[in-house]
Amino acid sequence: MQFVLASASPARLAVLRAAGVDPIVRVSGVDEDAVAERLDDPSPEQLVLALARAKAEAVAAEIAAEHPDAVVVGCDSMLSFGGDVLGKPGTAEVARERWHQMAGGTGELLTGHAVLRLDGGTATKETAATETTVVRFASPTEHELDAYLATGEPLAVAGGFTIDGLGGWFVAGIDGDPSTVIGISLPLTRRLLGEVGVSVVDLWRPGG
Amino acid sequence: MQFVLASASPARLAVLRAAGVDPIVRVSGVDEDAVAERLDDPSPEQLVLALARAKAEAVAAEIAAEHPDAVVVGCDSMLSFGGDVLGKPGTAEVARERWHQMAGGTGELLTGHAVLRLDGGTATKETAATETTVVRFASPTEHELDAYLATGEPLAVAGGFTIDGLGGWFVAGIDGDPSTVIGISLPLTRRLLGEVGVSVVDLWRPGG
Repeated sequence: MQFVLASASPARLAVLRAAGVDPIVRVSGVDEDAVAERLDDPSPEQLVLALARAKAEAVAAEIAAEHPDAVVVGCDSMLSFGGDVLGKPGTAEVARERWHQMAGGTGELLTGHAVLRLDGGTATKETAATETTVVRFASPTEHELDAYLATGEPLAVAGGFTIDGLGGWFVAGIDGDPSTVIGISLPLTRRLLGEVGVSVVDLWRPGG
Repeated sequence: MQFVLASASPARLAVLRAAGVDPIVRVSGVDEDAVAERLDDPSPEQLVLALARAKAEAVAAEIAAEHPDAVVVGCDSMLSFGGDVLGKPGTAEVARERWHQMAGGTGELLTGHAVLRLDGGTATKETAATETTVVRFASPTEHELDAYLATGEPLAVAGGFTIDGLGGWFVAGIDGDPSTVIGISLPLTRRLLGEVGVSVVDLWRPGG
């Protein structure tokens, strides 16, 4: 049984590797806007679920011949703050504005995971769920914010922060699963694997 | 200004490195039992504070000549569950018993940090504080627990679990700061550094 990660995210891959799994990585060519347009006024939960499912299904179809016995995991995450969904800031100016809004406040990291099981090249089971983790932001000084923006880190990550990099100094705490915030929830993935009849420990690399 | 970590913990060092700081590592020879005995019926908070202070002070005295301008950070952590303080299980049998108790329940990770500032070889400022993070344990199956114990990971860590290794699959969530659970709280360290007049960003390695 192969573990296939349907995501290009190096952060998700790093979380899985640190937790004993060396997945095969395949990136779906899913058109996220097209998936969103097929839904009628979706809630954020419906949207991340649909995207996670679409990614897992696209990759499963691609790899079924090569890896006929596999579990394919699709993921989608979004950070919301004050009702707005926040993507990657892209520029230091946008990242600075975001941090001025977020400092001292709380955001919500919503993640959706879909797990699809292939047996003999055929999809036999599929399950999906969402999870939310609350992130409490600290209040960096302007001197700290200048230094953080100058590193470039916050520009390239959703919400403009990390908890496992330089951003960890400026996150006061979370309520939920820390791996969710990095990009893939280990406890949720374990639960979904269980629902399709696979124990995660049987996917660990030899030696743990 | 040098950042000196008064701890032998590879997990603490890894947290700091991932967060942009390359500390000098010096391990104090503090006799933890002797520190505890000098206190009259201490609370867990008083105990971790006293140990964190003792470690920072011992290392500061040692390194003052070599690194006259430095901040020395001492840390002490304990996990309590149902009123008991849990150390490293040591054996698979003890780790299994612990997990049977902890599964589905919540523990409390109490951490104490002390920051001592040296200027020109003299201690000019010192501050210390504690922080608690709640850890919610999932319920591994016996098959999963067998596999986890067989890796050896839980035997060698306080409380018999990690959130940044294989144990991450079996921790449902936390309420607090994830770096606290790994061993050193980044937001608390940042706050204590600020109290002795040092911004953490000025301790980041060149390039962040």
